[in-house]
Amino acid sequence: MTGMKAAGQKKLMLFSGRNHPELAEQVAEQLGIDVAPTKFQDFANGEIFVRYLESVRGCDAFVLQCHSDPINESIMEQLIMVDALKRASAKRITVVTPFLGYARQDKKHRGREPISARLMTDLFRTAGANRLMAIDLHTDQIQGFFDGPVDHLFALPILADYVASQVNKAEATVVSPDAGRVRTADRWADRMGSPLAIIHKRRDPDVANEVKVHEVVGEVEGRTCVLVDDMIDTAGTIVKAADALFEQGASKVIAAATHGVLSGPAAERLQNSRISEVVITNSLPVPKERRFDKLTELSIAPLLARAVNEVFSDGSVTSLFEGAG
Amino acid sequence: MTGMKAAGQKKLMLFSGRNHPELAEQVAEQLGIDVAPTKFQDFANGEIFVRYLESVRGCDAFVLQCHSDPINESIMEQLIMVDALKRASAKRITVVTPFLGYARQDKKHRGREPISARLMTDLFRTAGANRLMAIDLHTDQIQGFFDGPVDHLFALPILADYVASQVNKAEATVVSPDAGRVRTADRWADRMGSPLAIIHKRRDPDVANEVKVHEVVGEVEGRTCVLVDDMIDTAGTIVKAADALFEQGASKVIAAATHGVLSGPAAERLQNSRISEVVITNSLPVPKERRFDKLTELSIAPLLARAVNEVFSDGSVTSLFEGAG
Amino acid sequence: MTGMKAAGQKKLMLFSGRNHPELAEQVAEQLGIDVAPTKFQDFANGEIFVRYLESVRGCDAFVLQCHSDPINESIMEQLIMVDALKRASAKRITVVTPFLGYARQDKKHRGREPISARLMTDLFRTAGANRLMAIDLHTDQIQGFFDGPVDHLFALPILADYVASQVNKAEATVVSPDAGRVRTADRWADRMGSPLAIIHKRRDPDVANEVKVHEVVGEVEGRTCVLVDDMIDTAGTIVKAADALFEQGASKVIAAATHGVLSGPAAERLQNSRISEVVITNSLPVPKERRFDKLTELSIAPLLARAVNEVFSDGSVTSLFEGAG
Amino acid sequence: MTGMKAAGQKKLMLFSGRNHPELAEQVAEQLGIDVAPTKFQDFANGEIFVRYLESVRGCDAFVLQCHSDPINESIMEQLIMVDALKRASAKRITVVTPFLGYARQDKKHRGREPISARLMTDLFRTAGANRLMAIDLHTDQIQGFFDGPVDHLFALPILADYVASQVNKAEATVVSPDAGRVRTADRWADRMGSPLAIIHKRRDPDVANEVKVHEVVGEVEGRTCVLVDDMIDTAGTIVKAADALFEQGASKVIAAATHGVLSGPAAERLQNSRISEVVITNSLPVPKERRFDKLTELSIAPLLARAVNEVFSDGSVTSLFEGAG
Amino acid sequence: MTGMKAAGQKKLMLFSGRNHPELAEQVAEQLGIDVAPTKFQDFANGEIFVRYLESVRGCDAFVLQCHSDPINESIMEQLIMVDALKRASAKRITVVTPFLGYARQDKKHRGREPISARLMTDLFRTAGANRLMAIDLHTDQIQGFFDGPVDHLFALPILADYVASQVNKAEATVVSPDAGRVRTADRWADRMGSPLAIIHKRRDPDVANEVKVHEVVGEVEGRTCVLVDDMIDTAGTIVKAADALFEQGASKVIAAATHGVLSGPAAERLQNSRISEVVITNSLPVPKERRFDKLTELSIAPLLARAVNEVFSDGSVTSLFEGAG
Amino acid sequence: MTGMKAAGQKKLMLFSGRNHPELAEQVAEQLGIDVAPTKFQDFANGEIFVRYLESVRGCDAFVLQCHSDPINESIMEQLIMVDALKRASAKRITVVTPFLGYARQDKKHRGREPISARLMTDLFRTAGANRLMAIDLHTDQIQGFFDGPVDHLFALPILADYVASQVNKAEATVVSPDAGRVRTADRWADRMGSPLAIIHKRRDPDVANEVKVHEVVGEVEGRTCVLVDDMIDTAGTIVKAADALFEQGASKVIAAATHGVLSGPAAERLQNSRISEVVITNSLPVPKERRFDKLTELSIAPLLARAVNEVFSDGSVTSLFEGAG
Repeated sequence: MTGMKAAGQKKLMLFSGRNHPELAEQVAEQLGIDVAPTKFQDFANGEIFVRYLESVRGCDAFVLQCHSDPINESIMEQLIMVDALKRASAKRITVVTPFLGYARQDKKHRGREPISARLMTDLFRTAGANRLMAIDLHTDQIQGFFDGPVDHLFALPILADYVASQVNKAEATVVSPDAGRVRTADRWADRMGSPLAIIHKRRDPDVANEVKVHEVVGEVEGRTCVLVDDMIDTAGTIVKAADALFEQGASKVIAAATHGVLSGPAAERLQNSRISEVVITNSLPVPKERRFDKLTELSIAPLLARAVNEVFSDGSVTSLFEGAG
Repeated sequence: MTGMKAAGQKKLMLFSGRNHPELAEQVAEQLGIDVAPTKFQDFANGEIFVRYLESVRGCDAFVLQCHSDPINESIMEQLIMVDALKRASAKRITVVTPFLGYARQDKKHRGREPISARLMTDLFRTAGANRLMAIDLHTDQIQGFFDGPVDHLFALPILADYVASQVNKAEATVVSPDAGRVRTADRWADRMGSPLAIIHKRRDPDVANEVKVHEVVGEVEGRTCVLVDDMIDTAGTIVKAADALFEQGASKVIAAATHGVLSGPAAERLQNSRISEVVITNSLPVPKERRFDKLTELSIAPLLARAVNEVFSDGSVTSLFEGAG
Repeated sequence: MTGMKAAGQKKLMLFSGRNHPELAEQVAEQLGIDVAPTKFQDFANGEIFVRYLESVRGCDAFVLQCHSDPINESIMEQLIMVDALKRASAKRITVVTPFLGYARQDKKHRGREPISARLMTDLFRTAGANRLMAIDLHTDQIQGFFDGPVDHLFALPILADYVASQVNKAEATVVSPDAGRVRTADRWADRMGSPLAIIHKRRDPDVANEVKVHEVVGEVEGRTCVLVDDMIDTAGTIVKAADALFEQGASKVIAAATHGVLSGPAAERLQNSRISEVVITNSLPVPKERRFDKLTELSIAPLLARAVNEVFSDGSVTSLFEGAG
Repeated sequence: MTGMKAAGQKKLMLFSGRNHPELAEQVAEQLGIDVAPTKFQDFANGEIFVRYLESVRGCDAFVLQCHSDPINESIMEQLIMVDALKRASAKRITVVTPFLGYARQDKKHRGREPISARLMTDLFRTAGANRLMAIDLHTDQIQGFFDGPVDHLFALPILADYVASQVNKAEATVVSPDAGRVRTADRWADRMGSPLAIIHKRRDPDVANEVKVHEVVGEVEGRTCVLVDDMIDTAGTIVKAADALFEQGASKVIAAATHGVLSGPAAERLQNSRISEVVITNSLPVPKERRFDKLTELSIAPLLARAVNEVFSDGSVTSLFEGAG
Repeated sequence: MTGMKAAGQKKLMLFSGRNHPELAEQVAEQLGIDVAPTKFQDFANGEIFVRYLESVRGCDAFVLQCHSDPINESIMEQLIMVDALKRASAKRITVVTPFLGYARQDKKHRGREPISARLMTDLFRTAGANRLMAIDLHTDQIQGFFDGPVDHLFALPILADYVASQVNKAEATVVSPDAGRVRTADRWADRMGSPLAIIHKRRDPDVANEVKVHEVVGEVEGRTCVLVDDMIDTAGTIVKAADALFEQGASKVIAAATHGVLSGPAAERLQNSRISEVVITNSLPVPKERRFDKLTELSIAPLLARAVNEVFSDGSVTSLFEGAG
Repeated sequence: MTGMKAAGQKKLMLFSGRNHPELAEQVAEQLGIDVAPTKFQDFANGEIFVRYLESVRGCDAFVLQCHSDPINESIMEQLIMVDALKRASAKRITVVTPFLGYARQDKKHRGREPISARLMTDLFRTAGANRLMAIDLHTDQIQGFFDGPVDHLFALPILADYVASQVNKAEATVVSPDAGRVRTADRWADRMGSPLAIIHKRRDPDVANEVKVHEVVGEVEGRTCVLVDDMIDTAGTIVKAADALFEQGASKVIAAATHGVLSGPAAERLQNSRISEVVITNSLPVPKERRFDKLTELSIAPLLARAVNEVFSDGSVTSLFEGAG
């Protein structure tokens, strides 16, 4: 016989970096599997070393890493993980970045700046990634940065359904904290069947150069305002927006965002603000010292697990999450 | 002697496709040169053939083509022009697309869609383009689609200075025709020192599914409203926006946009509307049958010529246009 | 368990552009499947938009488009279709171009010309095509332009067997309309067991510069001449060749070609010529106004369907069509 | 000062492999330079090692190698030379292959064959070649195989002018030795102002399968026949063609070809044939044992030198050699 | 039905170049299959032609070629074989080079040299290789040259177990013939449980420039010395090392190496030396005239067969050969 | 006039990341220029932002960054700097990494490991680097990892000449701390004209598995031993080697290495050891807390400045540093 035949078979494996192993554990549990055993080692000078403890040859690999503090190590660790999978003959490698680092640097504002979001997608491609899976990218155009398929998931159903269960929908108004987020607020308003309002920051033409007025557009008096965004970083914008809403007579403010970056003063600011509740997902790990009483964290593990499973079994990711898009 | 030395020299050449030769002529005139002589031929079955009539070896080539009707031919012609330059040893090829075709298809709204804006930039790269120059891209992120330097120019100074000369600035209000264009309106308001208003289209939560309310946000009563956008295609959005402004008591409406696509019913709609003047640039050719009395066309040739010259002489494009960014 | 296993499975899907949907329907019917439902939309300024209505994840995609009038739109539409498939995680994408546009521009005749046939194959590669399937490429070398596998099919058996059934083979002579097509005529002569003749166009050395003599090489007096070519475009060559054959005493002339481009004056010229019958395939759509009484159109759908099926099932395309090669 | 400026300068360097150093010496002499000193070494197991003895940083490198016996070593040596130049920071690398090896394998005749001509151009690209210069490629389409500029030179003026000086032009007829070379013969006929004839090899339909008739097309009786081809390899074709011409009454036969491959029995066959003179160029080295009395070798060094010089100085190669194209 | 489904299946095929067909036969036998029938042809001027005689569409191809005399032809032949497989739609192509040619040229010693080992891996990648399999690469870093998975196998268990069976282990000392091979000797010492010694070649600081002293480091008096290396080329090093060992009182010397290059004077030198036995593998063919009485050749076919099988069936190559690493 | 000509000019610019600005300042001073003014910003979540404050269009850019603590940020910052230069039309980008991070991960020891050194060079290539400049790479083969020219500099002359000035050369012996560094020690011995010794760590075959003996090879009794290495990381190896030398009667030990990584316990270990002096270069910044009395730091700025200048002016880097290679 000239050749040798065998039945085709495929095998899903889930790998996790060290940034947020709990999320990977949850996704694995949803899938009914274990996270693939991996040895990590830090050299004395900070270099990262990775080794997989089981054969990965021919597998359909999903490599989950959250891009949060220390963000550059997390990204580098994931790149190294992808390189090791490529060299070990994984059949297909999907990089799973619930929050994609550097996504805000998606354009040049002025000359001589990087477009780091494109750089990151190129680095993953170079390391060996065939596909990218992410949740609520900062702008939809980032899908076009990666030279391959992107599964862009939406956390909206998870967040909005929770919020809807906490408020009297007849009294709720969805509010965009600035003009750049109206698209997100629009989707919320549609799903919740609520009216919309916008906070518009602009220079006061009558006064000095740098002064910004936080103008509230739309009716908020006596309403339960749901301030929505893709991420909460230092929480400066969201807290000022809440203040403006209360000034205009809002009765209550809830803040909701997919990614709880919660850098620097965020926890303190939010805790000390008049916002009643801050709802985020666990797309990023929130260390104990950044947690606060008003914080509600919802799990995106079921969302990720379903998406991973559909990708593995050639099902439709679109049909699953169409409601959100 | 082992080798042979010679002084380095560089040569700028400007090439033009057939979509809008007048614009290329104007740019060449500003630069004090002629458009490079080129032979075009259409085969009986529609295939395009191109041949340059002078040596292009070693030149710094700028290939200008407007992407308008028939848009796919225009793009294909430019791709073929780039291929011929590459094979004829041009040293560097800059694709100049005052209006980049397919720029609106910059993301997937739902599954199984193309991202044609990325595809276009990839096609130009494949044909041999080293650089891209464009005016007012639909979204800034498209800069990140091209794998190389992008010179992103702004027509704002040209448009805004003209409009400012036509209105009483104390009475002017800059208006964004929808939420997605607030960033553009913001820049206008800053440059003109005028207040801002927004048209917000949204579903009425109390009524049926498809009904959209054109809500005017900000004060427009008795004001001269300057409706601004990156392009005017069929003019549906801009005309409805103008109606909403007049309903709210606007005294006058001027519309301004960089790209006058003016497809289908645009000319008729605009001419029959209550808009006083429609200001565009010649980034796209406007055929006679699409012109109308209220239309004012400003030339972007000086802008393009200055940018081409700065690129050729390694000057700073940023510094030239910083005011606009 | 560390991973999750599943049986491998593959799925063939056939997609069709809008240039020649009838051909795609015929191929699908032969395969016992439906063409994949696809939504096409033309924007007001001519931009094309595509969306697939069913999941294509993991499929073995065949994208059929004929490159005919309007040829540049047809090519661009197919490129966009490929881009959408790539982004939607199709496993393998085969571009099926029964007639490959720009195939005649396969070399530089002089300096500063494009090699558009190579450009086209590069554009398809960039968009995401893994493989190319075509029928009777203008020159065999074009197979080497595409950086991947090419299935090069031959329509000769279909055409020659039909022609053989129409003529008295003992009286038939195969004729090449010019020196460049002798290879094609050679294959015909071998299959039909007929003698060969050649029309040789050349400058008359004794007369002026541009005059060409249509010299008939070989015996044609009293013969039924079968003029063969890869395509009939404006039909100028073929009609002049027929005239020369009749001048040399041919009793009857039949013309046969794979691709019926039939541009401009082709239909009228052929109908008014002394050629008895013009035999082509449906590798390109022939609109009603280009049809004429003498035209016979044979279907290549069975050929395409068999090739698609062999590619999908890892069978041998070579063995199927060896007779033709 | 932030930066440091210097005047641009460029430097041409000519490198030569070991296959045909005499040709490189001639080209260098024409250019008024020396071939760059290079150390070659063969390891005991046949591996080749190369080192340049002078700095090549920033130079415009031309790497000349003839692809003849032992052809695979010659190609490998040139690839290694290109690699060393790339790593030593040559600014631009032009591979000069007077005769490009494997050019005849430019298509698949049947399934499961390589397209080695494309492979060769890809290998040179991978090693670091930016440009390719060759003389009389086997088919013009090979220009489209290389992903970059190709300078395709023609030896026709050199060969034809010599032949014209040796014959009575009024008595000369240009003859193509088979149907595949008619294009070459056409160019000769145009330049010499002579009539054309063709040798057509085909199966005799009345007899057995493999018998080929060498049919002479055109008038050759009493004529001085100039048999032309791109290369003479084993000389089988050319000698049989000459026999057929004498059978048809030719008075004299001269054979001319750009590339004197002259493999195996070629020298003996030609010497023993009735051909009066065999004219070739020195695009390939002809070792003493393959030389014979009737052989005339013309130098292509002036042609190569002029082309190299035009490429270096951004002049027009097209204009130089247009007459030939 | 929109699509057509079929069960996935995979097929292993083994291809062999002409350098060492016996090894391929042995590997095929171990796998219980036949080497795929392939037609090779040499053109008169030395060009190689390849054609596969059975369908290879969709197969998992392993292309075995030994890189030995004539080494450049062997490499070129393998490149052409890979090209033909790529164009014939093989699914995955693994290049199997038991001894990788040019592996010693893995760095630049001085300026303006090639890194030919990297060039070779790049050439194979360009031709279409997806994976590389090799035995005992000259340096481990060469794994990093290939842009894809590399299966690096070790012949140590085969060699060392044989040697262990031939000597009294209590009396054996493993010796590295120079400082650069200590890593190899280290592995041997570990596996055999023997002490280690080193031959250190260095300039004598007290004497002239070029004089090298062969210093023996470690105890060898009265010991059975096992001289180990990755390859034996001209055998100069190994014979001088043996002489130094005998000078220091060694009682017996055995030489062992994976690759028996055995160029030029190797056979004679070894036969005439005081070395008792030379143990190699059949990773390279040893022609009759290079064989000698003291030579023992062990087969690596079982090792290759097991590795090929593990790669095909997605098993772990690592686990198989861990002992050697 | 069709085109516009201008004299060619080139401009060197030096850019520095934030890891070791002092070194960049020193290099700039040597070159007589300023480091290009650059704005760095850290986002709250750790993302890095870079903007150049002067035009970089057309410049020959050298981007210097040391890869030390925090090493992953340093690498990412340099990647982002390169991306910004590429997008701002720098003509050529040379990445200068005096110490290349991850260089020790240059091979797979076992299966399923990354080859991070190759990954790093690929990442820089993807970001836009055309060239790489580094000092004393961990293994020479890493030059072959980067797909472009590498300037590999040697600090040996700087280090060895200093050491030679500190010792009585007649009493000095160069010592390699382990078998893997013999090549480095060899170069030292040649330059200093001193004898060589080696520390050989190996398992004692008579005792247990993990016990390593530090065997001193060569004469060291009463000698001044110069222990040399490419880097000193945690200093464990070097201190144990020194102990072994003193045990064998060394009178004095000096340690010298190019890269003073000096991680973790290094400073304390070295200070508390019997080593007299530790000589390194400033290829990496040594923070105050890692400095200690015995440490001597030599500047490599002159070496880097000369190399940068030679690269810019197309001089020979080889000739400058030949003595070291």
